[in-house]
Amino acid sequence: MNADERQCPGQAAFTKATVPKAPAEQERVLLAHGDGGQLMAELIEGVFVARLGTGEPPGDDSALMAASGRLVFTTDAFVVDPVFFPGGDIGKLAVCGTVNDLAAAGARPIALSASFILEEGLPISELERVVDSMAAAAREAGVRVICGDTKVVPRGKADKLYISTSGVGEVPEGVSVSGTAAQPGDVVLVSGPVGDHGLAVLSRREGLEFESPIVSDCAPLNGLVAAVLAAAPEVHVLRDPTRGGLATALNEIARQSGVAIEIYEESVPVRPAVAVACELLGLDPLYVANEGKMIVIAPPEQAEAALSALQSDELGAGATRIGTVTEGQGRVLLRTALGTRRILDRHVGDQLPRIC
Amino acid sequence: MNADERQCPGQAAFTKATVPKAPAEQERVLLAHGDGGQLMAELIEGVFVARLGTGEPPGDDSALMAASGRLVFTTDAFVVDPVFFPGGDIGKLAVCGTVNDLAAAGARPIALSASFILEEGLPISELERVVDSMAAAAREAGVRVICGDTKVVPRGKADKLYISTSGVGEVPEGVSVSGTAAQPGDVVLVSGPVGDHGLAVLSRREGLEFESPIVSDCAPLNGLVAAVLAAAPEVHVLRDPTRGGLATALNEIARQSGVAIEIYEESVPVRPAVAVACELLGLDPLYVANEGKMIVIAPPEQAEAALSALQSDELGAGATRIGTVTEGQGRVLLRTALGTRRILDRHVGDQLPRIC
Repeated sequence: MNADERQCPGQAAFTKATVPKAPAEQERVLLAHGDGGQLMAELIEGVFVARLGTGEPPGDDSALMAASGRLVFTTDAFVVDPVFFPGGDIGKLAVCGTVNDLAAAGARPIALSASFILEEGLPISELERVVDSMAAAAREAGVRVICGDTKVVPRGKADKLYISTSGVGEVPEGVSVSGTAAQPGDVVLVSGPVGDHGLAVLSRREGLEFESPIVSDCAPLNGLVAAVLAAAPEVHVLRDPTRGGLATALNEIARQSGVAIEIYEESVPVRPAVAVACELLGLDPLYVANEGKMIVIAPPEQAEAALSALQSDELGAGATRIGTVTEGQGRVLLRTALGTRRILDRHVGDQLPRIC
Repeated sequence: MNADERQCPGQAAFTKATVPKAPAEQERVLLAHGDGGQLMAELIEGVFVARLGTGEPPGDDSALMAASGRLVFTTDAFVVDPVFFPGGDIGKLAVCGTVNDLAAAGARPIALSASFILEEGLPISELERVVDSMAAAAREAGVRVICGDTKVVPRGKADKLYISTSGVGEVPEGVSVSGTAAQPGDVVLVSGPVGDHGLAVLSRREGLEFESPIVSDCAPLNGLVAAVLAAAPEVHVLRDPTRGGLATALNEIARQSGVAIEIYEESVPVRPAVAVACELLGLDPLYVANEGKMIVIAPPEQAEAALSALQSDELGAGATRIGTVTEGQGRVLLRTALGTRRILDRHVGDQLPRIC
């Protein structure tokens, strides 16, 4: 049913690929199946899309509900380790992640749901702290968690708590953004420095201390997106670069739109502390998760307006132009400071597990 | 925002109780906080509703989204152990549970979401089997899983896999059911024998063999509910008696509506195999979970029509009248075969963990 369902920007609307690639060589689930990279894409296409889909190309994080006008639906599971990290916790993350998936569809959030899987023995005070964070983030986003569920599993069958949030949002009349809509000539913007969230979680998990503390960028971006769409209603693509980071999100868009995206290495904002930490840890900040950044791809005549709108908002103060869309076949190219170009592919295997 | 949001029948719409009872004496999460009984109710009121709610009485499993006409929203986490059991598996359960929460709001399902938490090492073949079950159950219900998410946690941080499903549904014009709507004089019906699901899961988990195999009743009830509402549009309450069983669901309704519910012990259908197994295990079938049954509370003039509609459907073939609503203060009374009456309270503590 609902054969006319269309896709909107976000992480995995379940729609069947033409030739599902079953991950036959993988007999068991690996940590890398959850990290946003190549193996995860194969699992989603081979197992979920092949069985639950209906014949349209997948790729976006939210799906439009055909029977309901301009309503979109999205869901996310949160398993971040540790539960509390600099700049946020699993509760703030669960609300922001879902609000941002809706925002990336151009939608204003209408309602959220939250389901909790609690490990026996979790201190109630920690649960209360997490739920307080959810409430604060929801207030900031101007949305409510209107229904929920709670399950408890025995000690050792979860890790403190996991939260799944779903969201319903409404796309305003006149707004039409999609991961499939990038066009050659379009300008690629990002709303601020990348890599903060992943490094903040990793540093707390591993007990690393850096000279400058690294704090997660976790924030609800629905207000920022509304400002961008008001200033530049012709924006083609919005996408929040979470798991797998900027490089993975751009790869998804390039594939969905059947274009190439060229990024200027020097233009991608990375905080010095994050750059140093990545250097030390052997990580590429372009692949590190963000939870409060938005990629905006706009036609050239509206790029300035979109950039100004981003920069005028506190959450987009560090926005910059980082590249352009060109003719091509689903690839992302990085133009280095030296003028050379290299392919910025989806990574295979495990960069950072349990980052969200 | 959305101060005019109203509640519809189902498991925990987050709305603030007047005096949240914080479970102060409980310092850590216990398994019993997840079993549908008294402790869980206290956790929901004290932690979730107090922090996420808005000032209306909680109680239903779905919540109406004020901004969206007659749309309802619901969510559930599924952590059943074992993942595969007689009559179903976690995938079938995840779809049916959410479809049935929507059905209990009188809503037809529009779309489902599914988020997966996978334990590293889970055989891909088991995941495929679960997703196949989800697809089959969704087809049976005439709904689609349109978006999803996948996270992987290290070995020992989950138990094979957990699934959270959310659902959006639409309440047809003219339908108005709610856990608050039971009235003295109403007739209480149940769509068939109770306790099958809980016993089926428990027997597989514990390796128990009974003379007659006990099979879960797990099934999507949206078609059955549509038939009942077509025949008896004035039905007051629908509720699927899942965790905590029939007794817990009736207690919720009695409290929400501020009435008493009197049940005739002899009229409650229980399969002989389930009755024998409960006797052996020291369980009360009235508190054992169902996943394919519906409580229907109808005004007396439409009770016959509702019962006929139930009995005409394969999934309601065993429907019977089990009691009546009377004046009272949120209590459920059981009238025994001997003519005595006893209070059928919410249970405190752990009857059956991880049953859904």
